[in-house]
Amino acid sequence: MSETVTYADVEAAARRIEGVAHRTPVATSRTLDERLGAKVFFKCENLQRMGAFKMRGAYNAIAQLTPEERRRGVVAYSSGNHAQAIALASRLLETSATIVMPRDAPAAKREGAEGYGARVVAYDPASESREAIAAALHRESGGTLIPPFDHPHVIAGQGTAARELFEEVGRLDVLITPCGGGGLLSGSALSAHALSPGCRVIGVEPEAGDDGVRSFRSGTLQTVHNPRTIADGARTASLGQITFPLIRELVSDMTTVSDAQIVEAMRFLWERMKLVVEPTGALGLAALMSGRVPFEKGARIGIVLSGGNVDLGAAAALFTARGLQ
Amino acid sequence: MSETVTYADVEAAARRIEGVAHRTPVATSRTLDERLGAKVFFKCENLQRMGAFKMRGAYNAIAQLTPEERRRGVVAYSSGNHAQAIALASRLLETSATIVMPRDAPAAKREGAEGYGARVVAYDPASESREAIAAALHRESGGTLIPPFDHPHVIAGQGTAARELFEEVGRLDVLITPCGGGGLLSGSALSAHALSPGCRVIGVEPEAGDDGVRSFRSGTLQTVHNPRTIADGARTASLGQITFPLIRELVSDMTTVSDAQIVEAMRFLWERMKLVVEPTGALGLAALMSGRVPFEKGARIGIVLSGGNVDLGAAAALFTARGLQ
Repeated sequence: MSETVTYADVEAAARRIEGVAHRTPVATSRTLDERLGAKVFFKCENLQRMGAFKMRGAYNAIAQLTPEERRRGVVAYSSGNHAQAIALASRLLETSATIVMPRDAPAAKREGAEGYGARVVAYDPASESREAIAAALHRESGGTLIPPFDHPHVIAGQGTAARELFEEVGRLDVLITPCGGGGLLSGSALSAHALSPGCRVIGVEPEAGDDGVRSFRSGTLQTVHNPRTIADGARTASLGQITFPLIRELVSDMTTVSDAQIVEAMRFLWERMKLVVEPTGALGLAALMSGRVPFEKGARIGIVLSGGNVDLGAAAALFTARGLQ
Repeated sequence: MSETVTYADVEAAARRIEGVAHRTPVATSRTLDERLGAKVFFKCENLQRMGAFKMRGAYNAIAQLTPEERRRGVVAYSSGNHAQAIALASRLLETSATIVMPRDAPAAKREGAEGYGARVVAYDPASESREAIAAALHRESGGTLIPPFDHPHVIAGQGTAARELFEEVGRLDVLITPCGGGGLLSGSALSAHALSPGCRVIGVEPEAGDDGVRSFRSGTLQTVHNPRTIADGARTASLGQITFPLIRELVSDMTTVSDAQIVEAMRFLWERMKLVVEPTGALGLAALMSGRVPFEKGARIGIVLSGGNVDLGAAAALFTARGLQ
């Protein structure tokens, strides 16, 4: 397995996921365009199968396993969208999935993965390491570990969302995506570079989890552990060994937004655009609405709404006085 | 102005609103289809301009005013989606709109209409009649009153949503729409009758506002005043003089659902389909999920999600323990 990823890999991934992952719609808002003086195109990965772009990378990775590897199954550690994606992709590709999740993960997340037929192994995050457990499971079963972002096939799969966006709307001046471990950001940048030369690609992190911004600026991989932010998909400790160099090479800039700015963007998406988008999924719009992304009047701007998996009760709290404490 | 409406009027309305109203997308859910053993197509009028199908009828009616009538402006009474629709359609057609709203209408509704440039006249629902005020405004200004449903041009406009659905997905076995005053239901039935002969058309009301069901069954127009239901778009006192005969002729059946069943359908739409749909908009799915609409295995079922205008705080309360009291 090569550790580099090119746009040709994104194209191959697009063929692999065709007819399996949704070709998600592109949404626009006249209100937003008038307010900003720009033309904004939202790639609705919240409407992707299992509710997030993660389906693309997971399927692309598992689809490339050998028959023998598929027979032994796959292993992943995640309490978020990657878990659901691995579970669903495994079911579709008729392999077995084991997901390592913290014992205190929300029941809905556990049930989501189990609903797609995965086996969930709970661990105690206070005393056990999920990496060690996943490695032990790998040794026991010989199952293939599919990491959440730092894997060429995962990155190539994630790049297919931006590829579809460019195919549908053409050239863009700016493309903004959320950034956790950088799988979506680096994959998107590969597509932008190939399909819309000159398009500035911007990655957005929550303020509390700004390791990516600091890594991007300093050139050295920085880490943040368990940042306190509502953007649970971007709590990743650091960029990866594969995603970091790609981001340094292909991404124009990175920026951060506060949780309050995320809620403001979510409110616009829910209230005006009628789209349920999770906090991490709203990072791109939050950056744009709060002026963190410079653009020229009339600019064509793409935003990846990365996911929509959110507990309605928790989201409700964000929109009311009980919101951000 | 003729008091009858035919499918030819729906076709003419479709040409009139083309390029102005959105041709809204059709959403599907594998999860729902597997659960029900059917193929369900959702017409997403929550994604319509101003957030509801009402845009179609309002625009179709105002577009047919003479230049002299447009000069004098239009008058409407509504605290809901019809107000926003009249306000937006008036702005687009360069006429002035006066909306009569109860003094205690939510500020967001008033601001919504004003945001589109309408003049809002507040009245005290305890001591004044909105019809009398609207009539007085009509006498003063000569403005044309556009009623929320009982008007041939409004009905014809509302029928264009179902027309687009049939154009996109072809024949259906069942078409389910919410029913307040019956504008959407009768317009949809005209399209179903013309484009998918044999398709059963079902209207759904909240239990507390079951005047339409009783009218449909008895053949005599029944009324319900201020029914207590979360489906604020279906609190209409009765069907209309034009909609009632159309519904009697073209609709196969009508049914009701409880507020709890509406919340269950909303939860599915928000949580699984990532679509913000208001309580009235969820009536159709609520009826289907609660077994109120019989269908054969493998049936092709259309549902009109009529709107998405909801206060996020109020909706949040529905999804949490503070929900239905």
